Order: sequence, then structure tokens, then C-alpha cells
Amino acid sequence: MIAKTPTPPCCAVIFTSVRTEGDDGYAATAERMLAPAADQPGFLGVESAREAVGITVSYWADLEAIDRWRRNLHHQEAQVLGRAKWYAAFRTRVVRVERDGGMAGPEAESWAG
Amino acid sequence: MIAKTPTPPCCAVIFTSVRTEGDDGYAATAERMLAPAADQPGFLGVESAREAVGITVSYWADLEAIDRWRRNLHHQEAQVLGRAKWYAAFRTRVVRVERDGGMAGPEAESWAG
Repeated sequence: MIAKTPTPPCCAVIFTSVRTEGDDGYAATAERMLAPAADQPGFLGVESAREAVGITVSYWADLEAIDRWRRNLHHQEAQVLGRAKWYAAFRTRVVRVERDGGMAGPEAESWAG
Repeated sequence: MIAKTPTPPCCAVIFTSVRTEGDDGYAATAERMLAPAADQPGFLGVESAREAVGITVSYWADLEAIDRWRRNLHHQEAQVLGRAKWYAAFRTRVVRVERDGGMAGPEAESWAG
């Protein structure tokens, strides 16, 4: 699903990763992180896809919201396991969204693009 | 592949899309756009994955490099076809990368994270 983010400015985290072999609890934890992330103040939406690399873009109102989520205890546990078990390599890029445009499909009526 | 981008600041375009049914020339054009994009001054790398949505993040030295690529004639032809045929919905977000960290795998030795 394409995230219905508001008119910029907002912020985002681009998390690009290469997984290790096997699941090893990964899918359950990834699923379990979604609800508390979405409950954080300032959370705006998330987009995700994985082939050879996985790309997850989470959108946030400001950098403070991103820092709060980074310091969240459940998320910190997941970060430790991610480094130890799930990711062969990853990169986390914190960005400011400056311009935003597009074409809305039937599932994205609420933004004009 | 995780893009080996330099220490921030740099810029990026997050292109998130939902495809229409069928290929209709899409794959060939997507492949054909990679070489001229990579030849553009200021191009730094690209990451891409598709499941229910496709996410392509291209990294650029500055906003001017992004604007030059947006105005590139071959790319403009592809943009017209994208709106007309290939995408049910898409969103293009132009961002500034402010922070960058991670964990390098064997295929990403050249950056420290």
C-alpha cells in the first residue's frame, strides 16, 4: 500500500536490508513491531517490499518522532536481534521529505498528488 | 544491492508504485532507463524491490541532479508511458538525506556505517 502522507514537509526513514538465511523469528517480530510503531505520536505511514533487498520506508511528522521510535524499548530489542541474527547488511537513512507528487489509484483516493 | 552512498548530505527520490496488470513493455523500459540514469552527473546509486508495491530509491548528489534527470527526454517518454499504461497509482517523494548508518555486509565493504 502507498502511504497516504500529508503535504510536505515530513520526515522518513529508509531502511534497506539484506536478510540472512532462514526466518529465525524474523517475520513474527516484524509483524509485532507494526502496531507499536503505528501507535507512536507522529507516525504517518509505512511502505515495504522485499526481493534481493528489502526496503521499508516509514514516514514521520518530524525527527523527534523518529528518535522516540528508535529509543522505544521493544524496538531496541528488535534492533539488537536484527544486528545479531536477521540482517547480513543494512543501512538506515533518515531523510526530510521536501516534495511530493503522484497519481492516485482507487486505493489512494484521499490524496491529490 | 544496498547503494554505497557517500556521507550525507545527499538527496534521493522515493518512487512507490502499484503496477497495472501485464507487462506491456514495462520491464524492457525499466531496464533501458538504468544506464542513462547511472550516467547522469550526480547519480549515486539505486535500490529497488517490488511485492504488492514497488519501491525504488535513487540517490543523487543534489536537487539539481534530480531535476536534470526528471527533464531527461528518454526519461520523460517513460514517465508518459508510466502514467498511461504501467502504474495504477504512484507517488514520488523528493527527500534530503540527513543521517546515514548501518552494518556493512560482504557486498558493502566500502562504507563504514
